[in-house]
Amino acid sequence: MFFKKNKKEINKIKEAEVFSNKKPKSLKPLSGFLDLSPDDQVIFSNLKNAILESFELAGFAPFDIPVVEKKSVLLANAGGDTAKEIYEINRGDKELALRFDLTIPLAKYIANNYKTIHFPFKRYQIDKVFRGERAQKGRYREFYQCDVDIIGNETLSIKSDAEVIKIVNETFSSLKLADFKIKINNKKILGGFLSNLDLNSGTTEADILRLIDKCEKITVEEFEKLLSEKNLSESQINQIIDFINISNEENNLSNENILGALANLEIENEEFLEGLNDMNKLINILKTFNLPEKNYSIDLKIARGFDYYTGTVFETFFNEYKEFGSICSGGRYDNLTSVYSDKVICPGVGASIGLTRLFSQLKEANMLENFNKSSIDLMVLPLTENLEPVFNTVDTLRKNKLKVEIFLEEKSLKKKLNYANKKNVKYVLFIGEDEISNNFFKLKDMISGEEFELNSDELIKFLLKDKVEPRA
Amino acid sequence: MFFKKNKKEINKIKEAEVFSNKKPKSLKPLSGFLDLSPDDQVIFSNLKNAILESFELAGFAPFDIPVVEKKSVLLANAGGDTAKEIYEINRGDKELALRFDLTIPLAKYIANNYKTIHFPFKRYQIDKVFRGERAQKGRYREFYQCDVDIIGNETLSIKSDAEVIKIVNETFSSLKLADFKIKINNKKILGGFLSNLDLNSGTTEADILRLIDKCEKITVEEFEKLLSEKNLSESQINQIIDFINISNEENNLSNENILGALANLEIENEEFLEGLNDMNKLINILKTFNLPEKNYSIDLKIARGFDYYTGTVFETFFNEYKEFGSICSGGRYDNLTSVYSDKVICPGVGASIGLTRLFSQLKEANMLENFNKSSIDLMVLPLTENLEPVFNTVDTLRKNKLKVEIFLEEKSLKKKLNYANKKNVKYVLFIGEDEISNNFFKLKDMISGEEFELNSDELIKFLLKDKVEPRA
Repeated sequence: MFFKKNKKEINKIKEAEVFSNKKPKSLKPLSGFLDLSPDDQVIFSNLKNAILESFELAGFAPFDIPVVEKKSVLLANAGGDTAKEIYEINRGDKELALRFDLTIPLAKYIANNYKTIHFPFKRYQIDKVFRGERAQKGRYREFYQCDVDIIGNETLSIKSDAEVIKIVNETFSSLKLADFKIKINNKKILGGFLSNLDLNSGTTEADILRLIDKCEKITVEEFEKLLSEKNLSESQINQIIDFINISNEENNLSNENILGALANLEIENEEFLEGLNDMNKLINILKTFNLPEKNYSIDLKIARGFDYYTGTVFETFFNEYKEFGSICSGGRYDNLTSVYSDKVICPGVGASIGLTRLFSQLKEANMLENFNKSSIDLMVLPLTENLEPVFNTVDTLRKNKLKVEIFLEEKSLKKKLNYANKKNVKYVLFIGEDEISNNFFKLKDMISGEEFELNSDELIKFLLKDKVEPRA
Repeated sequence: MFFKKNKKEINKIKEAEVFSNKKPKSLKPLSGFLDLSPDDQVIFSNLKNAILESFELAGFAPFDIPVVEKKSVLLANAGGDTAKEIYEINRGDKELALRFDLTIPLAKYIANNYKTIHFPFKRYQIDKVFRGERAQKGRYREFYQCDVDIIGNETLSIKSDAEVIKIVNETFSSLKLADFKIKINNKKILGGFLSNLDLNSGTTEADILRLIDKCEKITVEEFEKLLSEKNLSESQINQIIDFINISNEENNLSNENILGALANLEIENEEFLEGLNDMNKLINILKTFNLPEKNYSIDLKIARGFDYYTGTVFETFFNEYKEFGSICSGGRYDNLTSVYSDKVICPGVGASIGLTRLFSQLKEANMLENFNKSSIDLMVLPLTENLEPVFNTVDTLRKNKLKVEIFLEEKSLKKKLNYANKKNVKYVLFIGEDEISNNFFKLKDMISGEEFELNSDELIKFLLKDKVEPRA
């Protein structure tokens, strides 16, 4: 039954001329490009699929756009760093490049397909993007982003902000990696507050926002020093520190108390009041969206780097692993397509997970130990050469949507079990002549070592029950 | 509840300065790059996921490798056309490029990770590849390939050839697009036969194989003429035509009869006999693998263009849509990694579907009319502002793995139903105050127009039953 290659034949193959002599000097993985071990490939994929499932269960539609785009399209709205980091393609006279995020191509797509899109447009995309940054730990040049966005046509309810925050909650709840918290702010609250401070000329709100965005990583003294370098008076500095301290975890204020404290500041700035009003609505809506309150809170320090956020902004942190930084960020933007179209007004709200980085952090912190490590539900080991009845059983299991690998090479039982073990399979099913004639199968739980004797109906029920355990 | 933007505000946004003035001249999709309408995005994704599901149910593991690779690695084994069509990347001093298939990077990966791979290595990859071919109808520059391969360590049972053919059968059976047939040959049968013909010097077997590969597209007379141009005698030409005609559909021979006819030729060529022996085994094994016999047959004209196939080769055709060409091809190769490693001998067998091309063909032939056009199982339309109990129901449905979109914008019921209709949703669920207090929900089948009144348990059972209908 085998291509039984003897040594002579193997040598023949080894010596055979290959089609070219251009054997590359090095097969080393490219720096900054993820090159996982076979076992990690499966875990990564299970993590990616779990996120994908959360996005799909939330009713978002899959979306797919070219990896390659015109450079002028990609860079239409981009600053200097992005232009420097873009991967250009050498091909003919068109200037092409690889996408560096999933938002810009979405904006172009909406501007182009505006008339055939059904709004609100709820789409997700889990896909690779490319940035030629300096390769360093935790930084990748080719990496996955997991994006969800809701795009409206001229208007979009603030309920959509809540819906995106809910998806983030559902996603990380179902992953069961660690306790987390979604920290929410509104750019108008921070912006209105700063504008009300009357900053000295030469200092912009953006300068201060950038400092606030980083303030958790430094001491109060360092933060004060950086602020004073921006020509802020002692009174202004104190106001800023008092302001962001309202939501300090040590104060242990509820979201309602924080909102009350903000109202009590009696800041008569239109932007501030608009932001406060939106945040009030958002917090009220979130209460009706079935999220555990421990999973989200207002944090006035969240300033999100990107200029294009205009309202709600949020970041997500593991409670016990602050060093990860934000594991999922997002927010509201007033008009996604403005750079591509003067006619189309599309407010949107979205969230993004940097999956490649998250995976490498989780792995390093040993947080994937309890994660599903197998790509299949069951490994079938035939104990007979009579494969027809074996495949009858296998096909019935597969029709019930069970992922079933069958081991077909001629190896010893020990080697077969060894293979199943290495592939981290939970269940192994033995099918021999006896099992077939008696309709009684031996199922082995490879983790507990338990063995079960089941007929084919019981087998299906057993495996399906184990598979579709309810989500958290 | 809304960001109620009045005209003045909208104009403010329209007039707002965008971050740059580099608005691109054209937003037209790039020629040769798939840019689907929003509705087609969903159908394409459902098609892709159905193929993916078949690969996963067959127990194959997901596999993911960088899009970007060193040019020297990609082109180590490639001829002139490939080198011309490759997309090079402009970046630093490393010569990089985009992968043009999924096989070469797999070969490199195996050569690199040989020691940590569990053999037989059964992996699938559904991913994009890039070829700078002249853009024309049905040809894409960025397109999806759906690959399954089984890679052995030094040996690989011919049962693996049967397993790959079975996956092709399961995949196209579950897609239910049209009747199809997998046409199987063995390169050694053709090669041994031709070598036995004593071709004149100056004519290679590869020359004749190339003509045989194309012979279905031309008349017998044209075929004879092309053969005679290769310096073949009339006797040799007749022998070739008689040979490939053995498996002619009009002869209506069973696979066993074809194998008998080949044996009766009494060709005493080692390669031929080896091929015939392998084919005999393969056909016998396939009978025990639970495939309908109408779905596969021996076809001696199948010659597969690629040089690297060494044994079993196959192509797949829709019976009534021959003009599609082969919709899934593959075969056995003796040593995948030879170009990268002298030490590692990895025989493999695989199959590949060119998904982007197939999708465009199916769409043009209106063969996707009955295909699932929705990305969700259910659309929930709340008839109340009291969202907490609505989300209780929604979350219960989602926990049961149902994809549930909830419509949250403030629109008229007519507009909400219109949205559901446009999104091709099969079921719409209305949840208002009455439904909540009575635990009785109205479910509307948007296709038949039928309405069902169900309590929450019945609802879940009803929707799950509709969803997990058994595969073909």
